[in-house]
Amino acid sequence: MAIGDSVRRVDGPSKVTGRARYTGDLTLPGMRWAKYVRSPIAHGRVTRIDTSKALALPGVDAVFTFQDVPDVLFPTAGHPWHLDPGHRDVADRVLLTGHVRYHGDEVAVVVARDELTAEQAVRLVEVDYEELPVVTTPQAALAEGAPKLHPGGNLLKSHRFACAPPGASVSDPQELLAQADVTVSGSYHTPIVQHCHLENHVAYAYMEDDKRITIVSSTQIPHICRRVVGQALSIPWSRVRVVKPCVGGGFGAKQDVVLEPMVAFLTWKLGGLPVKLELTREECMLATRTRHAFDITGKLGVTREGRITAISLEAFSNSGAYASHGHSIASAGGAKCPSLYPRAAFEFAASTVYTNLPVAGAMRGYGSPQVHFALDCLVEQAARELGMDPVELRLANVGLPGETNPLNKRVITTHGISECLRTGRDAFGWERRRAAIDAHNAAGGPLRRGLGVANFSFNTGVYPVSTELGGARLIMNQDGTVQLMVGATEIGQGSDTVFAQMAAHVLGIPMSHVNVVSTQDTDLTPFDPGAYASRQTFTCAPAVKGAAEQLRERILAHAAAMTGRDAATLDVRDAVVVCGDEALASLEEVSMDAFYHKDRGAQLFGECSHKVTANPPSFGCTFVEVEVDVPLCRARVVDILNVHDAGVLMNPKLAEGQVHGGLAMGVGWALSEEILVDQRSGKVLNNNLLDYKVPTCLDMPELSALFVQTQEPSSAFGSKSLGEPPLLSPAPAIRNAVWDATGVRVDEIPMTPKVLFKHFKAAGLL
Amino acid sequence: MAIGDSVRRVDGPSKVTGRARYTGDLTLPGMRWAKYVRSPIAHGRVTRIDTSKALALPGVDAVFTFQDVPDVLFPTAGHPWHLDPGHRDVADRVLLTGHVRYHGDEVAVVVARDELTAEQAVRLVEVDYEELPVVTTPQAALAEGAPKLHPGGNLLKSHRFACAPPGASVSDPQELLAQADVTVSGSYHTPIVQHCHLENHVAYAYMEDDKRITIVSSTQIPHICRRVVGQALSIPWSRVRVVKPCVGGGFGAKQDVVLEPMVAFLTWKLGGLPVKLELTREECMLATRTRHAFDITGKLGVTREGRITAISLEAFSNSGAYASHGHSIASAGGAKCPSLYPRAAFEFAASTVYTNLPVAGAMRGYGSPQVHFALDCLVEQAARELGMDPVELRLANVGLPGETNPLNKRVITTHGISECLRTGRDAFGWERRRAAIDAHNAAGGPLRRGLGVANFSFNTGVYPVSTELGGARLIMNQDGTVQLMVGATEIGQGSDTVFAQMAAHVLGIPMSHVNVVSTQDTDLTPFDPGAYASRQTFTCAPAVKGAAEQLRERILAHAAAMTGRDAATLDVRDAVVVCGDEALASLEEVSMDAFYHKDRGAQLFGECSHKVTANPPSFGCTFVEVEVDVPLCRARVVDILNVHDAGVLMNPKLAEGQVHGGLAMGVGWALSEEILVDQRSGKVLNNNLLDYKVPTCLDMPELSALFVQTQEPSSAFGSKSLGEPPLLSPAPAIRNAVWDATGVRVDEIPMTPKVLFKHFKAAGLL
Repeated sequence: MAIGDSVRRVDGPSKVTGRARYTGDLTLPGMRWAKYVRSPIAHGRVTRIDTSKALALPGVDAVFTFQDVPDVLFPTAGHPWHLDPGHRDVADRVLLTGHVRYHGDEVAVVVARDELTAEQAVRLVEVDYEELPVVTTPQAALAEGAPKLHPGGNLLKSHRFACAPPGASVSDPQELLAQADVTVSGSYHTPIVQHCHLENHVAYAYMEDDKRITIVSSTQIPHICRRVVGQALSIPWSRVRVVKPCVGGGFGAKQDVVLEPMVAFLTWKLGGLPVKLELTREECMLATRTRHAFDITGKLGVTREGRITAISLEAFSNSGAYASHGHSIASAGGAKCPSLYPRAAFEFAASTVYTNLPVAGAMRGYGSPQVHFALDCLVEQAARELGMDPVELRLANVGLPGETNPLNKRVITTHGISECLRTGRDAFGWERRRAAIDAHNAAGGPLRRGLGVANFSFNTGVYPVSTELGGARLIMNQDGTVQLMVGATEIGQGSDTVFAQMAAHVLGIPMSHVNVVSTQDTDLTPFDPGAYASRQTFTCAPAVKGAAEQLRERILAHAAAMTGRDAATLDVRDAVVVCGDEALASLEEVSMDAFYHKDRGAQLFGECSHKVTANPPSFGCTFVEVEVDVPLCRARVVDILNVHDAGVLMNPKLAEGQVHGGLAMGVGWALSEEILVDQRSGKVLNNNLLDYKVPTCLDMPELSALFVQTQEPSSAFGSKSLGEPPLLSPAPAIRNAVWDATGVRVDEIPMTPKVLFKHFKAAGLL
Repeated sequence: MAIGDSVRRVDGPSKVTGRARYTGDLTLPGMRWAKYVRSPIAHGRVTRIDTSKALALPGVDAVFTFQDVPDVLFPTAGHPWHLDPGHRDVADRVLLTGHVRYHGDEVAVVVARDELTAEQAVRLVEVDYEELPVVTTPQAALAEGAPKLHPGGNLLKSHRFACAPPGASVSDPQELLAQADVTVSGSYHTPIVQHCHLENHVAYAYMEDDKRITIVSSTQIPHICRRVVGQALSIPWSRVRVVKPCVGGGFGAKQDVVLEPMVAFLTWKLGGLPVKLELTREECMLATRTRHAFDITGKLGVTREGRITAISLEAFSNSGAYASHGHSIASAGGAKCPSLYPRAAFEFAASTVYTNLPVAGAMRGYGSPQVHFALDCLVEQAARELGMDPVELRLANVGLPGETNPLNKRVITTHGISECLRTGRDAFGWERRRAAIDAHNAAGGPLRRGLGVANFSFNTGVYPVSTELGGARLIMNQDGTVQLMVGATEIGQGSDTVFAQMAAHVLGIPMSHVNVVSTQDTDLTPFDPGAYASRQTFTCAPAVKGAAEQLRERILAHAAAMTGRDAATLDVRDAVVVCGDEALASLEEVSMDAFYHKDRGAQLFGECSHKVTANPPSFGCTFVEVEVDVPLCRARVVDILNVHDAGVLMNPKLAEGQVHGGLAMGVGWALSEEILVDQRSGKVLNNNLLDYKVPTCLDMPELSALFVQTQEPSSAFGSKSLGEPPLLSPAPAIRNAVWDATGVRVDEIPMTPKVLFKHFKAAGLL
């Protein structure tokens, strides 16, 4: 059936032909353009703001400053609401601010009849600032006498946890580290990067009456967006309607509510006029969200035989000027590790700190890439200290099916990491390459080669931190095809396609008979909080299944009424109701009768809203070969392979695409991408795609993906997470390979020529 | 509770502030404009068509002629599909034609970047015609040697039925007429009129992939429109999506599929480009739909004591150039009479005939106004012959509760016409006015006064002629408010408001907690064929009720899970879950828990699709006083009152508004409105609102409405039809009053000065 087939994307034709419409492709007559007046400094207070020249410009409808907005603090993180007030997001934003906290902060907004006029008006708004001292690192922000960015101080939150395998005789990680045969340690730094989704942030809003606001937005999270706008404007949530057209990528930057409260505020103030706010790439990189830079120190204890006994990590997470997802990132990054090495004790401490930098938020991996980078560096170091093959060291320590996660005490039902490592080692030709590389490097010369491996564990959704609710509705058309509505959002990852596969599978119809309604609309769409935490295929599946089973039951009941058969004897195969081998009626015939028979039947539909209370970990690893040009200080990936245990694959081709994307993003994070900030002024230096180096196709090696399919019993169709995982292990694997190639241990990324030069110089290679 | 209250319209603020968006208010970037090239003659064949000059005009994208469209005949009538092929609508249209059959017929279509360019290009299309003989009346069209408009000839269809009260000793109407003490007869003519809805016909279409077409249209019948477009383009119905925004009136003209197949064809041919087609008022009046002109001859037999024994009517219905709703109009007009006088035998024969006139289709009343006009003229004549008060004659003959409709043999459970007549007679001051008028007229002078009465029966929906299916879905928002989706279409009549009342009533919440989703979208909306046959309040009510009951049950079940109570002991009052007098939780609290509790609950919703298999008749009457200026040949309505048995009123203020609208339309039909056609050429002379006389507010008397509320047991909330009925009796009542005032029997409408002059002259008054 449809599940497990590499069917083509349901949105493929619309996207490759350019017929798909994104938020920027939509308009309304009379639409106005809004533009922010942004702070040119990273920290200060507005001492004077004069909008008169801007207001005098023909075509300008309005200028609002920080003095005109509601005095309401609201959060922006795309988390589901929490019934416990202690678990809600930090509310530290206002719509516009007079206390600017980063280079790009928003002090005013201009509304004009067109984009050009709005840009001109922005330049006519006069603002004077009193500059305040700038802090750019957690260390500086926590230092005595540091400027206070928010009333509560600069420490957003910190926490610590420790756990040990059930029944361990010694469970204190520090004690175990002290007892270990070999202890390795290090300090690691990961950079600020930006998501660089194809489609910039864009949203518009309008009103159709005096009460409710409609927002059309490129968002991953329409239902959460609705709630946050309600909070920001202090209106009931139901007064906000959010519509999500096609979205050109998000990677977490659209899991924050960035523009929507402002466009809602503007239409509200302007009598319901449609107002659009579309960021430039430069604004998007400066003033939406970034990935948190982490500073991590870590220790790992291991026995002489290679049994990892304890791991201890301490992380500082740089939040930038506002909380956004806050400490959740660091917290999640730590909490996802114990399922990888469940026989080791694990200790994790983390602090998230405000600084005068662009605001960090959710980004693919959500803290795990940073934490796993440190962890894999430590494991590599241990292998080298022990003289052990790094794959072997991992195989000796990763969890086995049926083992218990020492942190949450849950049994890990599917645990395919050992098989991933073995499959990858064989497929990548680890031994063969080892020999070839050793020979190559022994021959000397400027080009050195090396091998690296890294592995990870991740989660599938957010339960039990937050609620996991998915919703789906199916209605049958006259011709026997169905409409599938899901609350889960297609943002480019292919979710609409796998939901269509699930529906087709349960209903017994071809894929071509499923029309997915790709636009979510909070007025209509079954509730689902949205695209994040690699959750949708897993958490929405039971709802799709439930809705399809309900529809199938109604189909069979109506077919039974038509034919006089017992519904229990009927089935649907290839869009035909059958009784054993006897074809009774096509679904078109059943549907037509249900619609148009005068006395029996009704429209056939099914709907299901379903909470998931499981969160199985998924696993995987990266194998990589790099070539390092030592004199030029350039590292190049020669070959890279990811192997994943993501449970049963719904669509292998789409799964492969996810892995390719994650590999590419991982290569960029490892080697070239970084938002550069002037450490004195806090000014961002490269918020554009010329100076910020996303790898191009010329920088990419051939990307390879393999899968170890386990059958996860808590999953409706056996699947586990795959959206974020492909990004988790490439960077540490590349770093380990550079060490292997050069003998130089580089504990920071991106490993740009500048960074490698510093390390190679220190190591005496240059 | 909410039902029965005159709550304010849910769409009031949006419409009075101008924030509501209609199809013409919507656009897409790159939208193209289409314009038809119309025939300047009423009958002929295109002998040459040259589009080269139009195509050469800068800004013109394409010109399609009748040679470029699919060779597919399709119907346009807004009827639900029928499983029996014999009951389907006549398919006699192509998208464009080379055989033009009326003045305004469509031979080509131009698509350009803007409206002005499209209009210029239309003028550049060169067309030569071979003119053919023109027929404008059924008589001429059926005459020997008449030009054949369609391959099957000019008689579209004819039928005859007769019925008599159960157990009648003589059941043949003709025999009863021959035996009657008094027999009256006459020949009656009603005019072609046009709906003149505020919003002209407008639609646009676009594609978002290579497969499916989206149409946004001002339509009463999105789901039927979807089907007809599928037929016209020979594609599966599910490939068509129809979206209905706010609609500015339809009155039946938008119960035809007029523009949608063309915009769908154009976007299909133009690579999915959005293409809009917006008719001018002149095009709307010429080339959409009109009300059929009827020629009716009739006989009525009555005993000396005033018992009507038999009625016989023969009608010729002028369909114009195409079938549209075809013979259904005449058929429905006849079939709705027997429930009014169930103790009389009734005979009805009708023929519907093609002519070279604008196309007639559905219009408020759907054949009943024409047939009731003839019937009420005959009853008036009988009263005069018998010297009996016309109200008394009616009271002696109208049905009583529990009597059986002789045609369909169904018991008429609610039959409030006697009470309507008595209530109206008293409220109107029939006796008092009689005396005053007699005195006035006796005093002589040019201004004569008269009284008139007329009455009617109607249906509520179309069962069992076609299926009656309604659908509704409710989803609860976090704040305890609900979204209500219905397939039934708000087109100005107030249906969204009464559905909100029903939902609020069943759920136990205030009206302000119900948000009605007013846009229907065939991809999403529960199925309902649409706004026609005065059906929606009746046929959609069980679906709204069913969805609300399901939601209420889920609310109580979740509240029970939260509180540990037995759900059977719980109720919802004023948006609070109560147990007896104890308030347990607000709906907001219940909904928040259902959404966000991590382990229990889900989104709360309810959906119901429901077939109605009843069709109770509604009844009513008009009382009117007119003043006729005999020398000026002008009749003026002094006072007019409608009294209705529409079952239980959902919203008395909205009901009153429906009656006011119907009265106004009835006054226009009686006195001033007529599409004038040059009988020789078939050319329409007054397709504009200067020359076609819709009554203005200055022409209107004070309009009054009263109601006799019966409790219809087959109705979910006791209601019966009220959309069309107010139009049925004003015109014959006015005609009867003119007779009363002047002694001149006028058997045709509109009674314009020109018509009255002819009759007054013949009668010797002038």
